[in-house]
Amino acid sequence: MLQSLAGSSCVRLVEPHRSAWCFALLVLGYLLYLVFGAVGFSSQRFLEEHACLSEQQLEQFLMRVLEASNYGVSVLSNASGNWNWDFTSSLFFASTVLSTTGYGHTVPLSDGGKAFCIIYSAIGIPFTLLFLTAVVQRVIIYVTRRPVLYFHIRWGFSKQVVAIIHAVVLGFITVSCFFLIPAAIFSVLEDNWNFLESFYFCFISLSTIGLGDYVPGEGYNQKFRELYKIGITCYLLLGLIAMLVVLETFCELHELKKFRKLFYVKKDKEEDQVHIMEHDQLSFSSISDQAASMKDDQKANEPFVTSQSPTSNDSSLNN
Amino acid sequence: MLQSLAGSSCVRLVEPHRSAWCFALLVLGYLLYLVFGAVGFSSQRFLEEHACLSEQQLEQFLMRVLEASNYGVSVLSNASGNWNWDFTSSLFFASTVLSTTGYGHTVPLSDGGKAFCIIYSAIGIPFTLLFLTAVVQRVIIYVTRRPVLYFHIRWGFSKQVVAIIHAVVLGFITVSCFFLIPAAIFSVLEDNWNFLESFYFCFISLSTIGLGDYVPGEGYNQKFRELYKIGITCYLLLGLIAMLVVLETFCELHELKKFRKLFYVKKDKEEDQVHIMEHDQLSFSSISDQAASMKDDQKANEPFVTSQSPTSNDSSLNN
Repeated sequence: MLQSLAGSSCVRLVEPHRSAWCFALLVLGYLLYLVFGAVGFSSQRFLEEHACLSEQQLEQFLMRVLEASNYGVSVLSNASGNWNWDFTSSLFFASTVLSTTGYGHTVPLSDGGKAFCIIYSAIGIPFTLLFLTAVVQRVIIYVTRRPVLYFHIRWGFSKQVVAIIHAVVLGFITVSCFFLIPAAIFSVLEDNWNFLESFYFCFISLSTIGLGDYVPGEGYNQKFRELYKIGITCYLLLGLIAMLVVLETFCELHELKKFRKLFYVKKDKEEDQVHIMEHDQLSFSSISDQAASMKDDQKANEPFVTSQSPTSNDSSLNN
Repeated sequence: MLQSLAGSSCVRLVEPHRSAWCFALLVLGYLLYLVFGAVGFSSQRFLEEHACLSEQQLEQFLMRVLEASNYGVSVLSNASGNWNWDFTSSLFFASTVLSTTGYGHTVPLSDGGKAFCIIYSAIGIPFTLLFLTAVVQRVIIYVTRRPVLYFHIRWGFSKQVVAIIHAVVLGFITVSCFFLIPAAIFSVLEDNWNFLESFYFCFISLSTIGLGDYVPGEGYNQKFRELYKIGITCYLLLGLIAMLVVLETFCELHELKKFRKLFYVKKDKEEDQVHIMEHDQLSFSSISDQAASMKDDQKANEPFVTSQSPTSNDSSLNN
């Protein structure tokens, strides 16, 4: 009796915060997955140092090392590459792979490393998408929806005008905080990087293009390399979230929604096609089944829509 | 009178196919933008060859060239780099930048090239997202929704079971057509690429990580380089669409939707917060305005949702 009471009070405590708990678990899980990747990738160095190779394997290996010398992995330990697969560099590599940036300044050389990289990313990239979506969905409430609603109510301006001003201001703030200021910092911290090159690095990174011609923390005499690499990893992750929040803020603007709708298949048209199909196949299915499937189909009309898509009866008013 | 009749008949002809016309324009516009990028990037070579440089500029330029020799751009024309910025290579580069793959085997060296790359991508990446969303939305009707509906009605299986089987089969077909078969082809066409390396290239490319340690068509004695580069550009674009179609197909599965919802903020909760805010601010706004803004807010609850999100009154049945 007591147990069931304790159980029910526990349920009462947990249930209203279920999504918060699940979210905390997701964040923790994602960080652990990054660390797991870092350990996995850094173990590559160990294999390279200690694996027993046949002469042929050694030759093949050396050929690959020479081939890969262009990509920041040197055979000479006093030249470079000594830190390529230490823990923080591996963590940095794992985060750039999962965010699909992939500079390519370090790459897995062995077959095992390549296979690990494929499996790690095949699981990790959808995981990253889930993680980023959940984070952005929370951040946007505080950064976009509430401020827009607040100023709309406080000043009495139309919501669309407030939303446009807010999006532009948010864009400027993001460019300042994640492009201009970091670019200034990198141009000081990195030898031979001028402001344009630093800005170019920030842009190429946060857009996840990741050409890899500029990668910070790779200088031979880099001080506090490990701390620096962790800092850059955090910068890239936070910057990516900021970019997605800004993108989503702009995507929610009424004018942009209308513009995008020009290129999408109309809902009604698809619905009509479904009707025709259903009439053709009438004998094979009960009518209630058809109705249910049609509604499902209607709901699933838009790509990249997630299930929690809010629905209201007056959506046509805004179309 | 005749003019207005002709006008109205023209409207009647165009209006039902408006989204198809807009879509065709979008595809054409995207292809033109790719070609524009290719011309822009290939003009870099011209500038490098013909620009008049001061001694200091020349020194700086040579330093950069030497620095960049790691990234496939050589100062020796007989060694490599001769084809780095020809039209097809530039087109290939433009497509990898816009899809955020960014191998980094060729990179813009000059300040002008970097600035062009930033502006081109800042416009081009949202353009690519719009293009890919519009394409995937159309493809998924024929590849996922209709087959699922057809087999659901024809065989009488539950829609969820059919959807799962369909998603798995589609996944296998995509892996075969865009990973296994191309990997086999690359391992034949490219010297020194074994099957794993070719598969690794396909995976790293279509996941848009783009490390750039393996880039096809870069061999010194590459035959039909231009045709080959255009073929790879098409493969990457089609492969990306296929990946997004498969991702979206899996995302639409009822079980995965339920799983993802665990991590998202509940709609009701956010609605409550909006209510509280509105009561606080009651004096500043008319009630009808508030109601409208709340509905807007409800609708915009989900990140990455696009406006055409279909709505129906019975959505709660599926939650």
